[in-house]
Amino acid sequence: MKTLICVALATATLSAASLVETAKEAGLKPIPSSKVELMKLIDNPKNHITDEKVELGKKLYFDPRLSKSGLISCNTCHNLAEGGDDGVGAAIGHKWTANPHHLNSPTVYNAVFFDAQFWDGRDPDLEAQAQGPMQAAPEMSATKEHVQTVVTSMPPYVAEFKKAYGKDVKITFEKIADTIGLFERTLVTPSVFDDYLNGDDKAMTSAQKEGLKTFIDKGCASCHNGIALGQSMNAFNITGTYKYQNVGDFKGDANGMVKVSTLRNVTQTAPYFHNGKIWSLKEAIVEMGRIQLGSKITDKEAASIEEFLKALDGRKTDIIVPQLPVSTDKTPKPDLN
Amino acid sequence: MKTLICVALATATLSAASLVETAKEAGLKPIPSSKVELMKLIDNPKNHITDEKVELGKKLYFDPRLSKSGLISCNTCHNLAEGGDDGVGAAIGHKWTANPHHLNSPTVYNAVFFDAQFWDGRDPDLEAQAQGPMQAAPEMSATKEHVQTVVTSMPPYVAEFKKAYGKDVKITFEKIADTIGLFERTLVTPSVFDDYLNGDDKAMTSAQKEGLKTFIDKGCASCHNGIALGQSMNAFNITGTYKYQNVGDFKGDANGMVKVSTLRNVTQTAPYFHNGKIWSLKEAIVEMGRIQLGSKITDKEAASIEEFLKALDGRKTDIIVPQLPVSTDKTPKPDLN
Repeated sequence: MKTLICVALATATLSAASLVETAKEAGLKPIPSSKVELMKLIDNPKNHITDEKVELGKKLYFDPRLSKSGLISCNTCHNLAEGGDDGVGAAIGHKWTANPHHLNSPTVYNAVFFDAQFWDGRDPDLEAQAQGPMQAAPEMSATKEHVQTVVTSMPPYVAEFKKAYGKDVKITFEKIADTIGLFERTLVTPSVFDDYLNGDDKAMTSAQKEGLKTFIDKGCASCHNGIALGQSMNAFNITGTYKYQNVGDFKGDANGMVKVSTLRNVTQTAPYFHNGKIWSLKEAIVEMGRIQLGSKITDKEAASIEEFLKALDGRKTDIIVPQLPVSTDKTPKPDLN
Repeated sequence: MKTLICVALATATLSAASLVETAKEAGLKPIPSSKVELMKLIDNPKNHITDEKVELGKKLYFDPRLSKSGLISCNTCHNLAEGGDDGVGAAIGHKWTANPHHLNSPTVYNAVFFDAQFWDGRDPDLEAQAQGPMQAAPEMSATKEHVQTVVTSMPPYVAEFKKAYGKDVKITFEKIADTIGLFERTLVTPSVFDDYLNGDDKAMTSAQKEGLKTFIDKGCASCHNGIALGQSMNAFNITGTYKYQNVGDFKGDANGMVKVSTLRNVTQTAPYFHNGKIWSLKEAIVEMGRIQLGSKITDKEAASIEEFLKALDGRKTDIIVPQLPVSTDKTPKPDLN
């Protein structure tokens, strides 16, 4: 009896130590606890992060006047109060238009950790991504000229651009998108999972650790890995037999693939999948096993994995609602049509 | 020559001292500098302000899931980043529907200082007001049951209500609206005008003081008075000859009158008037002279009054974007139709 207990204890100790190793071997990576290391990861080498640029980018992110109607901002679909997305199946934009591909708005939190953006991965970074929704007809529906005119029509914006980039700055559409992207790079939410991988063994509960083991054992980490616990591409074949499919004429990337979503804050980002067709996280876990791994995930296993996923709920930095500059007579009027 | 200068100086000193008196005689009142005095003014005697209630009210104010679509929150039309309104002529709500009366969203900042709410003054306070837009079909389009179910479906909301009101609290639609109203009561923005009336003679610039004098001389303060620099009712006759009129079948109150808007933060709340038909503040000033006072306000006078109005741009308290509770399987799904 004594021997048995000793063996059990030894195994438990071994797993506690080796689970971190197993997780790392499976490709899971923490958000670095060192601010310097983190900054290296999230910074844009072509446009370094500064407080001035981030504050300006935040204002632009929250400014609905960048849209044709004056009513839709980046934050409308990527709501920082709601896990960084909008909680509806398909994004709703200008004139209450649903995304024609029935694509779901992904969270902006931790999106910096992907090296490709959009469901088909067509853009390399957040700066390039930010140009898309502003111009898309069923989203913010603006022209480049509209966005530029809005921003340059307000002296406080011009002054902030000069402060951020120097007095000779050209306030182009691209510069505006770059500044929004830079703000988005800072939306990083470390969690107890990171604390655990960074060496604090007590950061995760036993149930969360058990869930991590199940997550790895079932093969989830083969796609959900890296810091994002997601991958830029290499996801499921969109043209396959996916029963919830409803993506209009969206075809995924050249190989018919869509991006693997991040699992960070996943408890907050229902509905799930590129088409936003599943509302229950447990159901999403089981579906992914069936479709991606060709393996049955039992209810018990799904519950265990879900426990682990709760460890990915991140700590969000306080964001103060910005006070936007006041429109002038040069600011384009809202166009609701 | 010496005598003339002395007289001029004496007059200047006299006006500096007496302008405050003149303003007070004209019915203008400052936001009290004493926090105790201010609290007496903004508190709800039937539901006292506490930090817990205000924090909860803020979450509810920012929560789009209270709407039928899951996309429209109080903050959508009363955007705290944009002077407390939406910057469009007529409010746009559920399914991109414009307010059928072509009524403009008023600012929520300092709305506590009115003793009647809505353009026709039909509700006595912010708590009663908050019930309207949640249920209005062209606004948030929700039923009372929807709102109650959304809130009670999320354990963190239930816990916060218990913390705020005691464990036996009944989370009714009315209680939810009361809590939103209580948050709105705190949205008070004192400005240099208040500092000036409260005794700091240097708080306003000479041009602003000159503008205040013009404002009073032209009769603006006969309607724009009190702390709000507006009145609950007694405004212009909506059925009159107002050239910009376009208010559907909206008839104002029983006397065909609409509320006098607050002038606090008025530089931030274009377009102007109940029908949101004038974009230029200077034009709005001239129009009000013509229609309300039957008097021509010259360009120079309008410019002077506008200078004074800038002194009403208030200091806003920092508001941190709330992190909303996560939906559960009991939370109603968004209904976009």
